[in-house]
Amino acid sequence: MDLATLRILVTGGTFDKNYDELGGRLDFRETHVPEMLRLGRCRLSVAVETLMLIDSLEMTDSDRSRILASCRDAAEDRIVITHGTDTMELTARTIGAAALAKTIVLTGAMVPYTFGSSDGLFNLGSALAFAQSLPTGTYVAMNGRCFRWDDVRKNKASGVFEGRA
Amino acid sequence: MDLATLRILVTGGTFDKNYDELGGRLDFRETHVPEMLRLGRCRLSVAVETLMLIDSLEMTDSDRSRILASCRDAAEDRIVITHGTDTMELTARTIGAAALAKTIVLTGAMVPYTFGSSDGLFNLGSALAFAQSLPTGTYVAMNGRCFRWDDVRKNKASGVFEGRA
Amino acid sequence: MDLATLRILVTGGTFDKNYDELGGRLDFRETHVPEMLRLGRCRLSVAVETLMLIDSLEMTDSDRSRILASCRDAAEDRIVITHGTDTMELTARTIGAAALAKTIVLTGAMVPYTFGSSDGLFNLGSALAFAQSLPTGTYVAMNGRCFRWDDVRKNKASGVFEGRA
Amino acid sequence: MDLATLRILVTGGTFDKNYDELGGRLDFRETHVPEMLRLGRCRLSVAVETLMLIDSLEMTDSDRSRILASCRDAAEDRIVITHGTDTMELTARTIGAAALAKTIVLTGAMVPYTFGSSDGLFNLGSALAFAQSLPTGTYVAMNGRCFRWDDVRKNKASGVFEGRA
Repeated sequence: MDLATLRILVTGGTFDKNYDELGGRLDFRETHVPEMLRLGRCRLSVAVETLMLIDSLEMTDSDRSRILASCRDAAEDRIVITHGTDTMELTARTIGAAALAKTIVLTGAMVPYTFGSSDGLFNLGSALAFAQSLPTGTYVAMNGRCFRWDDVRKNKASGVFEGRA
Repeated sequence: MDLATLRILVTGGTFDKNYDELGGRLDFRETHVPEMLRLGRCRLSVAVETLMLIDSLEMTDSDRSRILASCRDAAEDRIVITHGTDTMELTARTIGAAALAKTIVLTGAMVPYTFGSSDGLFNLGSALAFAQSLPTGTYVAMNGRCFRWDDVRKNKASGVFEGRA
Repeated sequence: MDLATLRILVTGGTFDKNYDELGGRLDFRETHVPEMLRLGRCRLSVAVETLMLIDSLEMTDSDRSRILASCRDAAEDRIVITHGTDTMELTARTIGAAALAKTIVLTGAMVPYTFGSSDGLFNLGSALAFAQSLPTGTYVAMNGRCFRWDDVRKNKASGVFEGRA
Repeated sequence: MDLATLRILVTGGTFDKNYDELGGRLDFRETHVPEMLRLGRCRLSVAVETLMLIDSLEMTDSDRSRILASCRDAAEDRIVITHGTDTMELTARTIGAAALAKTIVLTGAMVPYTFGSSDGLFNLGSALAFAQSLPTGTYVAMNGRCFRWDDVRKNKASGVFEGRA
């Protein structure tokens, strides 16, 4: 398999939440994605681009249009999007419906990366792998699984992603 | 994508090295793979089977035959093998040459999982994703990349996996 | 030095904040103090008693009276109190003014224990040591230092504890 | 309590063991003590001096003489020594027998700091506290406890420090 070239679009979400020592709150400072790639000793050729750093509950239609435009405009045809889990399925549908000739994988985390118990590194590893190996389309990679954009939802009670059927 | 059923064959390697407090040495106790799957909130249907817990420098031809036999005998046709990095390419060749009609992905870690700075969770996430999405064949998943069994080697100087060409 | 017998009174604070995966918020679940003592391989004879699990900004006069009563009623004369940092100086004054014939040390953390980057383990180690070695009185142990109850304040701008002079 | 001025003499030991990714072995690179002080948000005035970075099983009489000389020559009269646990009691006796008019506390760790499960931060916090609050003498601070230099040994079977009586 050739050395793939990918783009990671960062939008924030739990993935990148930070503990603000002075305020005693969770906030956003800067993305942890480059640090995570170093920790994973990742040797893919990856461009990391921070579009926004927000909680996905606050994501607007305008934000989603901007993410879609970034996917369309990217030179790379394999893209990973880090995203809050609460509205990941909405953004997946916005992008999936546009039917770009690219492989686009959304992923996120249930626990911030800066916590010892985060699932972020596992999810990032799986998202980058799915983005390299799946055919054109838009997907959500969570819990070790991968879902098509039109067949995924977050089960709010369990926090687990599942098919819509 | 349907809920895949996978088997993880554990052979040891840096992945599972443990710090022995009393002896002040690295040793093997039991595999950390189930704990890593919990941390990754993995919801795949995965059977974890520990074949051996050894440093891959000590792996014999007989051990490799046993791993191959386990791949052949497994009910699942998607298999991840955790393995020490030093001789991963040898085991990949043993299995790859057998040309089983299965997707088999070897992975490992440069730093033990029990260390804060381990790449293990990232690699496990990527290996499980490649095992679900790649066609029949034997592969090595390291550094975020995936290599065919007959085109991979560990660069001993840098610790990075690369193609043989 | 003889094996001291101490009591740890848990009141909550950043020390014990937990990340609620489903709500995406910080909350309290149960105290991490016993786990921290295990991690520190602590062999002191310590009784851990959870009085409350609250943010110290929400601590009332009634809560402070209850903490003072617990100090007074404890069989042990060496006590560590885990406490949120925002109002630690107020509780220290409530207890210090009562001039019990005990050594009482308040401590806390700027970052929750469950975060990789927490100062909690360092502070707990220092508080237990000060509680064993200082004469009767009430103290605040933070930032590796120890302050008398009537000469301490948290610098809100820097998050650092300092003398009042 | 005034802002104490302390010196930390680093000699290595499990505290500072590092995982060598390429060799798959534990080795020494550089001391983690400054990073640990940052993590503990330590605001003591501390001078950190690395005397050696060795396993305490390899420590010679000449090494012990050098550590004693460093204690004697230090401008500070409150000193913490980080040390491997296997021969900590021997070094404590060498220094204790010299009866310097200083408070000297040896400490170490059962698990390297770079492991998630290390007791190092807890021990460093307690050693710095004991060094500030105990009278002149030489001590060993481990397991949350503090022992006089002439009444301490490591129980090799349990890994726990205890009095000799």
